[in-house]
Amino acid sequence: MTYDFSSVFRDDLPPPAQRFTGFPAFNFVGGHNAEEMVPVEAFRAAADAVLAREGETLGMYGLHSGPQGYGPLRRWLADKLKRYAAVDCGADDILLTSGSLQAIDLINDVLLEPGDTVVVEADNYGGVFPRLARCGAQPTPVALDADGMRMDALEATLDDLAARGVKPKYIYTIPTVQNPTGTILPLERRRRMLELAKAHDVPVFEDECYADLVWSGARPPALKALDDDGRVIHIGSFSKTIAPALRVGYIVAGWPILSRILSVKTDAGSGALEQMVLAEFCQKHFDGHLQRLNERLEAKLDNLTGALDAFFGTSVSYTRPPGGIFLWVRMPDGVDTTRLAEVAGQAGIAVNPGAEWSLAGDAGRWIRICFANPPEATTSAGIEALARVCHEEFGVPEISGNVRL
Amino acid sequence: MTYDFSSVFRDDLPPPAQRFTGFPAFNFVGGHNAEEMVPVEAFRAAADAVLAREGETLGMYGLHSGPQGYGPLRRWLADKLKRYAAVDCGADDILLTSGSLQAIDLINDVLLEPGDTVVVEADNYGGVFPRLARCGAQPTPVALDADGMRMDALEATLDDLAARGVKPKYIYTIPTVQNPTGTILPLERRRRMLELAKAHDVPVFEDECYADLVWSGARPPALKALDDDGRVIHIGSFSKTIAPALRVGYIVAGWPILSRILSVKTDAGSGALEQMVLAEFCQKHFDGHLQRLNERLEAKLDNLTGALDAFFGTSVSYTRPPGGIFLWVRMPDGVDTTRLAEVAGQAGIAVNPGAEWSLAGDAGRWIRICFANPPEATTSAGIEALARVCHEEFGVPEISGNVRL
Repeated sequence: MTYDFSSVFRDDLPPPAQRFTGFPAFNFVGGHNAEEMVPVEAFRAAADAVLAREGETLGMYGLHSGPQGYGPLRRWLADKLKRYAAVDCGADDILLTSGSLQAIDLINDVLLEPGDTVVVEADNYGGVFPRLARCGAQPTPVALDADGMRMDALEATLDDLAARGVKPKYIYTIPTVQNPTGTILPLERRRRMLELAKAHDVPVFEDECYADLVWSGARPPALKALDDDGRVIHIGSFSKTIAPALRVGYIVAGWPILSRILSVKTDAGSGALEQMVLAEFCQKHFDGHLQRLNERLEAKLDNLTGALDAFFGTSVSYTRPPGGIFLWVRMPDGVDTTRLAEVAGQAGIAVNPGAEWSLAGDAGRWIRICFANPPEATTSAGIEALARVCHEEFGVPEISGNVRL
Repeated sequence: MTYDFSSVFRDDLPPPAQRFTGFPAFNFVGGHNAEEMVPVEAFRAAADAVLAREGETLGMYGLHSGPQGYGPLRRWLADKLKRYAAVDCGADDILLTSGSLQAIDLINDVLLEPGDTVVVEADNYGGVFPRLARCGAQPTPVALDADGMRMDALEATLDDLAARGVKPKYIYTIPTVQNPTGTILPLERRRRMLELAKAHDVPVFEDECYADLVWSGARPPALKALDDDGRVIHIGSFSKTIAPALRVGYIVAGWPILSRILSVKTDAGSGALEQMVLAEFCQKHFDGHLQRLNERLEAKLDNLTGALDAFFGTSVSYTRPPGGIFLWVRMPDGVDTTRLAEVAGQAGIAVNPGAEWSLAGDAGRWIRICFANPPEATTSAGIEALARVCHEEFGVPEISGNVRL
């Protein structure tokens, strides 16, 4: 007697979601962060101060700041982008969004139409592919090496597209702490990417949501900092540096495109309390917090690589990233990581299979492991359990933790 | 030398947004609320308590509650919907969203395709029309009277569509404190709407974002409360009862549709700090806060109607609504309210013209005035100024505040 909605759904809906039943025991998926590093005490003080001073403004859509988001957070961001990434922008060049995912959606909304082509890094953030598919756009992958996107490959790709009469809508790149490879694109490649983008009259879409998690603190200027004609659209996030559940991201771009993005941002503004608390917190505590977070994340990475070395030995390979929250791991010969993720999931170990994070030919050999969230002992136990599952399914590794399996 | 994005924008973009330069002196547009009623002190206590207890969970996407949103807020909402609207649902039937606008977008996303038809109240929330247009769907208007949507008109509309072989995707209604008319659909009409929906095998999309602002406290049960086969999708919001800048809304529906909505809600969750603070606040303070808010809003309405009577006299007409934050006002003969809104805007008086809020034939004679935000003296001065502008442009009213203009 229940009404059957199946006759009214649109045709190409994705499959239904599954009920959330809690996190797996060993949770290496997604971008969850170190809970122990959420700056709770400083957040309490920030919330109290900003609410006492300006709480009444929550009665207005957009506070008193308008649709671009809370003014003090945009002003702090403009200064921070200058200090950290050499980006020269003002608060008026920034639009605050509901996480950087909304930033991606908005940019796609103003630029993409069915049949469009975009150029992307072959190994990539998994959420990008379904988004492009929903817009009817086709990703053209460009290979990476240890220094990020290869410029010879980008040049060949752009030339090839041009030869076929295809002009891509943008080059999407995560240049600083790439997802999932963790690479950092060197300055000369950044300059070259902008040259190629100019030569082919293509915009650049720069996603820097991990860029502050460089443990040495040394990073090249953002592409946006090198952008002399306003072709770079830059996005970022507070999810990785402060807390993902806050859902605050941003777009940095010139008014000709920001005004178009604003006209399709019909959500009556992004959550303002979170913007207020972030602004209050960041003005006093961001730099120190980031340094402590990076130290903690590096320790967690060392723990993960230690566990991999102990329980997988030489059967896996990886490049230690200079920052971030992920490790991109190549599994032993004969391992199908889509199948591995499935059987590991049944054993309470969640990993992201490479096929969802890469268009490269060997995608099915890789997994992405997020090391930021689990405590060290949980990570070690999880990697030990993963090695056992992998051995049972694929016969490798043969030796784990000095024990022949 | 600036890169020209116009060659890469999609074809049917809306016009660019204008820079925000502050609110107009007399701000009667949108749904801004009474800033003096934002419960700042209780919010400070709520933020402090919930952050101290659970602040670390902000390190996880979705806290520890999963993608449907913060569990304690969903549990409080389930209880509140029972007490206020006789809706029998549990926390698992609720999805928290980034305002009720995201709820509308998500529901449209799973249901609508180009060429679809939906049935709507002729006078309506202005944001609905561009949303339908973006989905390629066509609204079919149904007339209202002093008791909301007319069921004879709905029946005729559904019969007419059926005769033309058109099955609408849903009936969209704001049954309790309708926007912009402020009407409340009586119980017998609610029952009749569900009968008609069943007879025509059509879902009902119930938007109750103003429903708690009934000053007498007496309201009929929600359509969702009368829904015996799960065809009603119910949405609501905290924007009108607590604060619009928080951007927290919700969808109440069965799992067959909620699981589909979740699969297209690819935003990694809605802002969690706001959900946490709201839950902590509402558990202790919602009922008392709502009563005080409603008293204040009713006093502000009385002030507005007093100003209209004083400065427009009998040249305008309106029905005093039983709740809400809007007054829907019919302007004197000969007034084109689209033009009035334009010239009033130049004089710092912002009103919503009827043409954006109605598909009815006489839409251009109406304006919508939000009375919740401006202080009483500002509202009075604004209505006096509006009468002067209206007189200068259209010659009416001839007498304002006992003065012949």
